Amino acid sequence: MCAQTTATGSAGHAPALTGVFPIAPTPFHDDESIDLDGQDRVIDYLIDAGVDGICILANYAEQFALTDEEREQLQRRILRRVDGRVPVIVTTSHYGTAIAAERSRRAQDEGAAMVMIMPPYHGATLRVGEGGLVDYFHAIASAIDIPIMIQDAPMSGTPLSAAFLARLAQEIPHVQYVKVESANAAAKLRQLIALAGENLPGPFDGEESITLIPDLEAGATGTMPSAAIPDVLGGIVRDWLAGEHDRATETWEYWLPMIHYENRQCNLRATKVLMKEGGIIASDRCRAPFGQLDPHLAAGIVAHARRRDALILRWAR
Amino acid sequence: MCAQTTATGSAGHAPALTGVFPIAPTPFHDDESIDLDGQDRVIDYLIDAGVDGICILANYAEQFALTDEEREQLQRRILRRVDGRVPVIVTTSHYGTAIAAERSRRAQDEGAAMVMIMPPYHGATLRVGEGGLVDYFHAIASAIDIPIMIQDAPMSGTPLSAAFLARLAQEIPHVQYVKVESANAAAKLRQLIALAGENLPGPFDGEESITLIPDLEAGATGTMPSAAIPDVLGGIVRDWLAGEHDRATETWEYWLPMIHYENRQCNLRATKVLMKEGGIIASDRCRAPFGQLDPHLAAGIVAHARRRDALILRWAR
Repeated sequence: MCAQTTATGSAGHAPALTGVFPIAPTPFHDDESIDLDGQDRVIDYLIDAGVDGICILANYAEQFALTDEEREQLQRRILRRVDGRVPVIVTTSHYGTAIAAERSRRAQDEGAAMVMIMPPYHGATLRVGEGGLVDYFHAIASAIDIPIMIQDAPMSGTPLSAAFLARLAQEIPHVQYVKVESANAAAKLRQLIALAGENLPGPFDGEESITLIPDLEAGATGTMPSAAIPDVLGGIVRDWLAGEHDRATETWEYWLPMIHYENRQCNLRATKVLMKEGGIIASDRCRAPFGQLDPHLAAGIVAHARRRDALILRWAR
Repeated sequence: MCAQTTATGSAGHAPALTGVFPIAPTPFHDDESIDLDGQDRVIDYLIDAGVDGICILANYAEQFALTDEEREQLQRRILRRVDGRVPVIVTTSHYGTAIAAERSRRAQDEGAAMVMIMPPYHGATLRVGEGGLVDYFHAIASAIDIPIMIQDAPMSGTPLSAAFLARLAQEIPHVQYVKVESANAAAKLRQLIALAGENLPGPFDGEESITLIPDLEAGATGTMPSAAIPDVLGGIVRDWLAGEHDRATETWEYWLPMIHYENRQCNLRATKVLMKEGGIIASDRCRAPFGQLDPHLAAGIVAHARRRDALILRWAR
């Protein structure tokens, strides 16, 4: 334990990142090729929205529908566009240990502040037990100097208990953040924080901030939502951490119907529809077979945003 | 319908491929880098074993632990080594439609005789419904001229009914082969063959040939096993198709304890252990986190092969 440890800082590490770290969507043209100029505008919008950092190449960036080369192209382009204005978290998940480590190393070398990684998985049947997971994260950690955020999400099909996550945080100094977006997130975060203590300076909420206030009550210090209302969600986290719990709760509840509509009806498609409506990107295309949002739901999410005068509809106008 | 249609040929197409099409493993050095010289020897061994064709980049080739670049490197190397001696089936599965189509096109351009594709999936949660699957396979078919084999395997987490597979074979002329390795394979193959008729010239058995005789009885005309005993399995299929059912059954039952041991205890690791024991490859390494075979089981599979004097232990000696 070193003397500089702060409320949100880990022993021997820089103070932990807190606040809002939205996932930048990957914009495509109507022919599904990557829209790099649109990507630049997405980044500028997020930074103007006052985000504390940006996450790229996550599932909400359709990483599952990108080639390796496209990942690298996007990583380079975005890190160059951000140019140090905010920290960037790069998702480097891959089933293969060495490939995930190599991706993480490359992200670090190009300027990433952190990597986010799910437990390794492939399809419906390939999963890894706890011993193998310790080896996996150890191997990645040994390739980098920046922190790791473990993403605890249903996509991986890998149950991660609070006790096991705390063990990873204790055994692997790089594991400083966990984003919990599995079921009963608040209860899990509370248990994880109690077990991991200062080994886990960054317990994060995720999943479009659909459980944000219960998760902040449980001790979360950051959230990783979509890019739909990052200004709002950043304000909520900052208010909460400053002790303004009533104001944070009131704001969240005002926006909750829209977040709920996004989370349950739209998925990652919501942000693209809103960004197109707001003129940030030219197409709301998602790559096949993921497909487009039903037009009724697209109108629905836009109506939610318009009723609340969301920045995403105004920023580029 | 054209006049040249044969028992195993589809209307308007070349006679269908029958027999044994083992999956070539991807050999790694002990440091997990690809062993290209070992890959060449794997190919030569398979061709000397009298296979009817070779499948590459499938799950038994650890495709889930390869980068895009490594896939291309292996594809080029293997197709060059095969040099037209036998047809090569390239697995080109990817969640993204356009990426799977592009991979398939490239495989064709480099000499593949066929592509094998699973329904698109990612992790535990991303799956595609029947309408989306029709679009997916249509899009891939429109990029190539060679046939498609649909792989019906648990890995994809996507139930494919016999009726739906028959519909795909009817609607998409490229879909000429289905490899069934889901539960109750024989019953499914029988139903599929009845429904699809001449639209499906290539109903295939898979999964290490662990259900080969029941599947041949149901009408399968080919098998896609591991590379452990391709000479034996090719002989069984050829005997069966020549009407020598008793001899085929007797041979299969003689080898069944070994196939069963491979299927239930060893997985893709069995072939690598046997190839190392037989001097075809220098290392039986599988990439982490998949990991190595328990030494007791490795000794067990070698004992099975030795007791039956398997070619894989003799070919390189």
